[in-house]
Amino acid sequence: MVSYRMTATEFLASGAKVEDYAQALLDHIAARGQVQAWAYLDPQHVLSQARELDAIPPSQRGPLHGVPIGVKDIIYTKDMPTQHNSSIYEHDAPVVDAALIMMLRSAGALIFGKTTTTEFASVTTGTKTRNPHSSQLARTPGGSSSGSGAAVGDLQVPLALGTQTIGSVIRPASFNGIFAIKPTWGAISREGVKFCSLNLDTMGFFARSIEDLELLAEAVKLEDDEKPIAHFKLQGAKFAVCKTHVWAQVGPGTASALNSAAQLLRAQGASVEELELPEEFTNVTKSHLDVFHLDAQTTFMSEYIRAKDQLDPVLVGFVENPSKLSHRDHLAALDNLAALRPKIDTILGRYDALITPSVVDEAPEGLETTGSPALCAMWTALHVPVVNIPGFVGEHGMPIGVSLVAGRYHDRRLLRVCASVAPVFEGGGWKSAL
Amino acid sequence: MVSYRMTATEFLASGAKVEDYAQALLDHIAARGQVQAWAYLDPQHVLSQARELDAIPPSQRGPLHGVPIGVKDIIYTKDMPTQHNSSIYEHDAPVVDAALIMMLRSAGALIFGKTTTTEFASVTTGTKTRNPHSSQLARTPGGSSSGSGAAVGDLQVPLALGTQTIGSVIRPASFNGIFAIKPTWGAISREGVKFCSLNLDTMGFFARSIEDLELLAEAVKLEDDEKPIAHFKLQGAKFAVCKTHVWAQVGPGTASALNSAAQLLRAQGASVEELELPEEFTNVTKSHLDVFHLDAQTTFMSEYIRAKDQLDPVLVGFVENPSKLSHRDHLAALDNLAALRPKIDTILGRYDALITPSVVDEAPEGLETTGSPALCAMWTALHVPVVNIPGFVGEHGMPIGVSLVAGRYHDRRLLRVCASVAPVFEGGGWKSAL
Repeated sequence: MVSYRMTATEFLASGAKVEDYAQALLDHIAARGQVQAWAYLDPQHVLSQARELDAIPPSQRGPLHGVPIGVKDIIYTKDMPTQHNSSIYEHDAPVVDAALIMMLRSAGALIFGKTTTTEFASVTTGTKTRNPHSSQLARTPGGSSSGSGAAVGDLQVPLALGTQTIGSVIRPASFNGIFAIKPTWGAISREGVKFCSLNLDTMGFFARSIEDLELLAEAVKLEDDEKPIAHFKLQGAKFAVCKTHVWAQVGPGTASALNSAAQLLRAQGASVEELELPEEFTNVTKSHLDVFHLDAQTTFMSEYIRAKDQLDPVLVGFVENPSKLSHRDHLAALDNLAALRPKIDTILGRYDALITPSVVDEAPEGLETTGSPALCAMWTALHVPVVNIPGFVGEHGMPIGVSLVAGRYHDRRLLRVCASVAPVFEGGGWKSAL
Repeated sequence: MVSYRMTATEFLASGAKVEDYAQALLDHIAARGQVQAWAYLDPQHVLSQARELDAIPPSQRGPLHGVPIGVKDIIYTKDMPTQHNSSIYEHDAPVVDAALIMMLRSAGALIFGKTTTTEFASVTTGTKTRNPHSSQLARTPGGSSSGSGAAVGDLQVPLALGTQTIGSVIRPASFNGIFAIKPTWGAISREGVKFCSLNLDTMGFFARSIEDLELLAEAVKLEDDEKPIAHFKLQGAKFAVCKTHVWAQVGPGTASALNSAAQLLRAQGASVEELELPEEFTNVTKSHLDVFHLDAQTTFMSEYIRAKDQLDPVLVGFVENPSKLSHRDHLAALDNLAALRPKIDTILGRYDALITPSVVDEAPEGLETTGSPALCAMWTALHVPVVNIPGFVGEHGMPIGVSLVAGRYHDRRLLRVCASVAPVFEGGGWKSAL
């Protein structure tokens, strides 16, 4: 029998029919309806696509043949509504495939359904979606890619797409105990994806293995200058732990996860030093916030002009700009971040990866807020690739992940490093009960 | 009788019915069909929209009530196909309004039709569109915003939208003897507009007066930090002529236009010095090209994967990258441009505007190519606002414009400066015969 527990890589190796795998996932989703990961899911459409894929002769199948992928509901799909969790688009959903969807369909993927998002992926007010690992489902899955994180964590789909402007990929990955990559900014086309910040928005992928992330990276031609190494050896590898200037916000779960991570790597013969970034990097948080707010002002001007009363007050605030941030502030922030990017590349070039918190701590209780993205903002602003690796555990038994960071356009190398690190972090104390 | 010759501002002041103005334009377009400025135009849809607008009570009318606007066919419109001059989108046109279209409709604009573009606005192979000023219509209107430039130049519509990644707004404006602004990069949302280069693409507006450009700028909330000055005095104003490091490519028409421009301003009591930019700005051309090529590689990966055989060889070349540009080259170019931006702002801050060529020379003969964007690339890469002002004339009697440039986010001030400069440049020797 085909199991919903298979990863994408396992499914491809199994030779199972697409329809059988899709049906197994649909059955599991029906049984786990209370997680509410989906904004739109039409089982009949899923199955009819699956049957079409099964009918394709093996010689004509793509590298993602039949692989089910959940799609955050700010990414346009021509056969399913895209509504951004906004009533403005209730009857006005775009009908076109995003560039990424076009690539995935061309590779044979089964676009499964649309996963929940906070409003326009731009606020931290929670969605209906629940963290599948929490008892009584009483904790947030994080956001803004709430549904993608929860669906993959709950084995409802092996792969899902998200976006990150502050911490919308890495945070839900950590909260849901799964892997995710936020690639180098600009490395994957954002065409057909709702804008929040022109200078910060980045696509992201969720999976339950590094292998699956690599499968997706390969299909969408995410490539480094150098071919990825075949196997990365931890013996003799060089890591640095970076607590960053926002460490004061970190709770006991993340503090302990970072300690464990360093110890586990040292036990494999890797060197792990502590790195304090130069003073100038403390400005990244402020610059990130200024760029985010003023980019969002431009972005949401159109919805504001059209239907201000249908926008979250936070989005109205971006446009009305009560703190009177100026274009001068915007440019200063943009120019500051741009100047820091080559500097962080140089620093990151000294290590196989930097190890840094993904989140403040385990997923907080309640669905009102998706939690703090404070630990992610810096790396989003610096445009560098980040991978979340799960394995650690918080005070309430919830998963906690750790971020591995590399210089810009070293995404594939970073994934290879993570492939060796991931099994080691399994010693971190958390294991999914699902 | 309502005349197609009215500008948008004149139409708004006239109190004419939208339907009458629209009908006058449609009649003129029918009479001038050989210009072929339109990729999509449905007269019945135009008139039915016009009648709906006329039915709106005066108290509920927007600032652009009934103003007809032509839309470059890479900008999404929900009621008209968007096909990017590509067969890939023949049956797959996006159905959604771009952010800019949403703002314009909310302001009461009449979205008139779709104007021609070169393939994905990313190649210089000409479209079917002809330069309305050329004898036997034998010259190019420029590109990639070919139809928008020709339609406004030919009085077929008072306002039109374009985009610029190298010189796709300023060049057709110069070739068609009209005004255009390429605003500060990022100042107007690009959501719902085909990507070419994430780091370079900029929206642009075409009009037959600075007043009309200001009307559009106001409606879409293009704002400086400071309120725009009421009237800019040329007496005592400070300009600089900048020939740039690509001056060697300039022909006699542009050389003479730049000379005349300086003389005309001096005659008004303005100071006009010659400015040579620091040596480091000579690298902008190379950096622009590297960013353009490698951004386009990411952009067109999706169409390449889906239907390589339906792409122009130039676009295939962006993806296949035969010159082996690396991510390292890309980052070096991005970081170089980012470092130069605050420097050019400082330099531009010393003047009321910089005066620089818009084009190599008047529009060349033939429709095979849309002409050279070499003189525009630098300012696009530096993200600064540029306005083309017509008034000068080439060897064959074709119009030549001159660019006025200001620092980032000084768009509205620049337009006010141009409002005073434009009548002076009417002494440059060219007058539309249309």
